[in-house]
Amino acid sequence: VQAASDDLESRLADLIGSDRVSSGPSDRGLHGEDLSFHSGVPPDVVVFAGSTADVAAVLRLAHDERVPVVPFGAGSSLDGHVIPFRGGISLDMTGLNRILALRPEDMTATVEPGVTRLTLEREAAQHGLLFPVDPGADATLGGMAATNAAGTMTVRYGKMRSQVLALEAVLPGGAVVRTGSRAAKTSAGYDLTGLLVGSEGTLGVITELTVRLRPIPDSLLLVRASFPSLEAACAVAGGMAAAGESVSRLELIDAWEVKAVNRHAGTDFAELPMLFLELAGSPGSVADGLEYVRELLAEARATDVLEEVDPTRQRQVWRIRHELFFAEKAMAPGREALSTDVCVPLGELSGAIRATSKAIASQGLIGGVSAHAGDGNIHASVLLDPADPGELARAHALVEALVDDALARGGTCSGEHGIGLGKIGALEREHGDQLDLMRAIKQAFDPHGVMNPGKVLRGT
Amino acid sequence: VQAASDDLESRLADLIGSDRVSSGPSDRGLHGEDLSFHSGVPPDVVVFAGSTADVAAVLRLAHDERVPVVPFGAGSSLDGHVIPFRGGISLDMTGLNRILALRPEDMTATVEPGVTRLTLEREAAQHGLLFPVDPGADATLGGMAATNAAGTMTVRYGKMRSQVLALEAVLPGGAVVRTGSRAAKTSAGYDLTGLLVGSEGTLGVITELTVRLRPIPDSLLLVRASFPSLEAACAVAGGMAAAGESVSRLELIDAWEVKAVNRHAGTDFAELPMLFLELAGSPGSVADGLEYVRELLAEARATDVLEEVDPTRQRQVWRIRHELFFAEKAMAPGREALSTDVCVPLGELSGAIRATSKAIASQGLIGGVSAHAGDGNIHASVLLDPADPGELARAHALVEALVDDALARGGTCSGEHGIGLGKIGALEREHGDQLDLMRAIKQAFDPHGVMNPGKVLRGT
Repeated sequence: VQAASDDLESRLADLIGSDRVSSGPSDRGLHGEDLSFHSGVPPDVVVFAGSTADVAAVLRLAHDERVPVVPFGAGSSLDGHVIPFRGGISLDMTGLNRILALRPEDMTATVEPGVTRLTLEREAAQHGLLFPVDPGADATLGGMAATNAAGTMTVRYGKMRSQVLALEAVLPGGAVVRTGSRAAKTSAGYDLTGLLVGSEGTLGVITELTVRLRPIPDSLLLVRASFPSLEAACAVAGGMAAAGESVSRLELIDAWEVKAVNRHAGTDFAELPMLFLELAGSPGSVADGLEYVRELLAEARATDVLEEVDPTRQRQVWRIRHELFFAEKAMAPGREALSTDVCVPLGELSGAIRATSKAIASQGLIGGVSAHAGDGNIHASVLLDPADPGELARAHALVEALVDDALARGGTCSGEHGIGLGKIGALEREHGDQLDLMRAIKQAFDPHGVMNPGKVLRGT
Repeated sequence: VQAASDDLESRLADLIGSDRVSSGPSDRGLHGEDLSFHSGVPPDVVVFAGSTADVAAVLRLAHDERVPVVPFGAGSSLDGHVIPFRGGISLDMTGLNRILALRPEDMTATVEPGVTRLTLEREAAQHGLLFPVDPGADATLGGMAATNAAGTMTVRYGKMRSQVLALEAVLPGGAVVRTGSRAAKTSAGYDLTGLLVGSEGTLGVITELTVRLRPIPDSLLLVRASFPSLEAACAVAGGMAAAGESVSRLELIDAWEVKAVNRHAGTDFAELPMLFLELAGSPGSVADGLEYVRELLAEARATDVLEEVDPTRQRQVWRIRHELFFAEKAMAPGREALSTDVCVPLGELSGAIRATSKAIASQGLIGGVSAHAGDGNIHASVLLDPADPGELARAHALVEALVDDALARGGTCSGEHGIGLGKIGALEREHGDQLDLMRAIKQAFDPHGVMNPGKVLRGT
């Protein structure tokens, strides 16, 4: 094996230059893990792509020699997408990090896949524009497209698939295709752009993206409130998702998460379900939205209501939500946080959150629930000792229970994290009738099965 | 051939009942044409599906016996999608017309494919909800999904692909699959929902859809204005598309279309480019939008500006746009109207409209241009004598010229009408590098090539 990977390294170096190829333990280690609780597995070799031509050369070799290739961006996956399943090449795309064009007149940008969302956001802001997908991490746009990322602004703007107008992608074997166009809409044949978005690196490697940008709203208002019950909080969330055209963020955390925030940030919020609600738009639109929020909050007997217009103080309030991961971890120092997500129809939100809390307790785990409440997207966060096989088994049992509950409610096994390594069985339960079609599509793109094997579909 | 189709008819009658099968000349004739200028070709047999089981039985027979099947809805295709290319079965889905569920708490509806958009709109309105895709015709929702329809409200809400959360579809061979879920978003494997949407009946038959609904806006305002130049009109359209969060419709017609309207409706509008702009939302949002529109209109030296808040009078103004097809036809009685569409990046709108007008003139054809201006989606309408082969050839040359112009501008060969029969060569020019992938997908779904042959991909 060692000889084989030495040979692989030297052949890759011959193809694209030795400075772009590494098998050093540090590079291999860093490219063997992500933010999930799945055990890391280092790749044999890391390749730092510098161009589409590099990617094509690597994919030609990989195809001809049956070497696995795992595209790698910021490494912020939450379900093992970038962990090599059986060695091979980790293809680091972060060096492809140029914004190739930003066109205010078209409201689009064309970027290389290693550009991160915050980099694009800063550049777009200079033209009064916004890139509206915020998954939390400063992920690369290529990675976000590959996993069809979503986040706090999805309630208003949609997921990555709604933003990506066109792709350049390299297919296994090295062919370069350009899907979609720079027009705002198209009906030109099968939607290969939409198929590559969310394919988790199993069909090809994205080497360029054209995405939509939106105007930065004139006015932003943040409302934070606590509620006597989960049902009361969800009633406000549902009411705003249904009628609040100005809603741009709608985040819910449960009482356990509030307790974690209090410990982490030294605050003393009542340990009750809490909602963070952002209104964005023209001043008149935000004012009308606020009037409706106030009505709903009064009906729901909300307490500790904060209305914040000052941008600096808004950021301070949002920090509570953004640092949730660290607050959670502080509840059980030394443990790893497992974050898993399911998504249910809007009317099922409070029932599904209750079921999630019960399932965490009945598995004897420590953790809480947060939600992108406007999308019905629920996250369970539990704190694990990865060295404890019993606890790990109970965490897996929790994920399965949450998936079954979501499916029983007409929902889906993942709203945004994707399948990766951890939801393969869940996908089989949800879409067993389509696995043959998915396998046929995989086969059409990647006949030798070199692209990110072991992800999405079992046995690939 | 006659004996073979008699045999087909009797075998279909045995399968699903003789009252659901017809080879009468009237039924065959009606199912052999659409609203396009493509020559009609009758199917051998028309089947009126009454259930998913009927569809499965027909698709099993068709698959086993290699009989072409063309799904048929309202017959309002503009590019030949429902015209049988080589006989076989026209599968009429209009009998599957029940609204199976309407869930205000989830903001979704589940419908059979023969439900038309206006039927759903009426039902949704009783719950304060809206179905936001309006392609003009009262098309069936199954047909709208199959062609990824769009229309006047796409600037705000997106195309059909953005509305469809879940599908039931019958695949060639008769297998029934259920894609997607009732949740607002999903990351569960490859996007088969999005792949079936827009596949134009070439991959399977949609037998049930779950679609998103939106709140009916509290306030609606219509602004109509004339402009000294096309560029001035496009500047306002671009400005509102870029910054006008409250814009829900943004329709442009050129001077020739205004002339047609004047003749048809007896109006006396100045024969100048005209914009119809709808603002929708909360009262404050609409008021802010109007303020911005007024600024843009003043800068653009717009004339004959009408601001209309009364719903009845708004409908009268919109009738101008809705009856455009008939107004166009009245410019050359006895001729057929050909409507073709391309879509360009927003910043290319005025240039592409100018190029379209020039191309119509240089082909010696009669016609004008309209646009869903907020999407960069341009329609050329020309009036043809279909019995004149020279004129028909020039019309085809016009379509090719418009496609080439759109592609050169970074756009697409179709923004909403789809490929059908008429854009197969255009798709090859636009996405030649992806035809093998598209063919492989077709092969995976439909190995014997029975679904709507001759559409989207050449030689299928």
